[in-house]
Amino acid sequence: MAPAADLGRVLCIITGASRGFGRAAVKELARLVRPGSVLVLVARSGEDLLTLQAELTQSEPGRTGLKVEVVVADVGQTEGLENIIRTSKKASNEDLDHVILINNAASLGDVSRYTKSFTEMSEVDSYLSLNVSSALCLTARVLQAFPQRPGRRRTVVNVTSLCALQPFCSWVLYCTGKAAREMMFRVLAEEEPDLRVLNYSPGPLDTNMQVEARSKTADPHMKKTFSDMFSGGQLLTCEASCSKLMKILLEDTFTSGTHIDVFDV
Amino acid sequence: MAPAADLGRVLCIITGASRGFGRAAVKELARLVRPGSVLVLVARSGEDLLTLQAELTQSEPGRTGLKVEVVVADVGQTEGLENIIRTSKKASNEDLDHVILINNAASLGDVSRYTKSFTEMSEVDSYLSLNVSSALCLTARVLQAFPQRPGRRRTVVNVTSLCALQPFCSWVLYCTGKAAREMMFRVLAEEEPDLRVLNYSPGPLDTNMQVEARSKTADPHMKKTFSDMFSGGQLLTCEASCSKLMKILLEDTFTSGTHIDVFDV
Repeated sequence: MAPAADLGRVLCIITGASRGFGRAAVKELARLVRPGSVLVLVARSGEDLLTLQAELTQSEPGRTGLKVEVVVADVGQTEGLENIIRTSKKASNEDLDHVILINNAASLGDVSRYTKSFTEMSEVDSYLSLNVSSALCLTARVLQAFPQRPGRRRTVVNVTSLCALQPFCSWVLYCTGKAAREMMFRVLAEEEPDLRVLNYSPGPLDTNMQVEARSKTADPHMKKTFSDMFSGGQLLTCEASCSKLMKILLEDTFTSGTHIDVFDV
Repeated sequence: MAPAADLGRVLCIITGASRGFGRAAVKELARLVRPGSVLVLVARSGEDLLTLQAELTQSEPGRTGLKVEVVVADVGQTEGLENIIRTSKKASNEDLDHVILINNAASLGDVSRYTKSFTEMSEVDSYLSLNVSSALCLTARVLQAFPQRPGRRRTVVNVTSLCALQPFCSWVLYCTGKAAREMMFRVLAEEEPDLRVLNYSPGPLDTNMQVEARSKTADPHMKKTFSDMFSGGQLLTCEASCSKLMKILLEDTFTSGTHIDVFDV
């Protein structure tokens, strides 16, 4: 079957929207949704979000009826989650036929240390709260605020990583968080057959997180791998990886709950 | 190679030691360690622990030099972790040649609800803190308190589950926590080649947790499976599963970081 030409009249909530993969996804989405769609952009950094909002509003989709809402919020706080739902409900209308949530916000954690150095509960608790609990609770709130009903598609994307499947030396928080998130979304897919759940692994991207990875990773072998990928031009642009994600969403033939890597598309 | 006859002169710290699998593991261990060994039993329930301690002290190993220490503590609290390390350091001596940590303490989480009902950060945060952060921080503290040195073996066991690998409907917290823990220990195994790390899945056990599973699980199919396993006599005793774990530890040929299921032994 040929992929759809667009994603429909969409309400799309995307976290970590101000930079990197999230920002690229927003731009791709703007081109692939029908007039009247709503994008709800979430990030902690207000300035970057407002710049992106202004850019989109002046673009072709913006001039032909794309609504762009901005939520400056910490998804690790209940208040932030409430704010996202409030804004999304207010901005949405009965015409929307596709609700998309992209759980993209994440942090790398301290990769400059090995597992045996993580003795403090508060550090691990904070990491898991921001990277696991928040994704679960935001997803639950979105599913409740926009329940299943005839004529409404619902898609939840988890931005995952190879680290959800493979252990990486000195990346214990990141690997643990990604493994946790991926399992969480696999359970959700089993529970909600009407929902489309995708664990998308965007690959090694040329982002700030990669700068952090290659400058701070404790494990020398891992660190060299990151540096070599950078100097060898092997990092993907966010745009290239996002267009693969959009291809998957347009085709809509993936098994719900599955893990799809950018290199498999 | 024939398995060793015993585990050596051991310091073994075991969490969740008062009931079920933990309690059975303590009894098996007591029979398999050399005189002069120390068992540090950790649980929240002091009464059960003291009964177990008295029982062991009066047993054959107790009468021939097994030391049994009790720590009544919540492993989800920093104070509890400090208490475990303090007691273990105090009780241990230079003669011990094998440090074993069994991360067994865990909670099921609320299985009476589906993923989309988990909207409150505090509930998820608490679950992950008790089931993931505490295991990481306790392990890190034990590794620091008892560093690698010549003549000392170190083994860390994570009591895992099929749920670390497969999504179970209405078990989102449990699956997420077990997937997170297992990845954490896989990273540890990669980082510490001198350490022996085992993810042991004990199978469906005839414990209080199974009673909770078959009485509270929201998903009707899962619930029936648990009831059928119980009525069909398919649940394993803790003793049977523990003896498989001991067999693995005595043989000591497993690949560090691997997941071993009771049914594979």
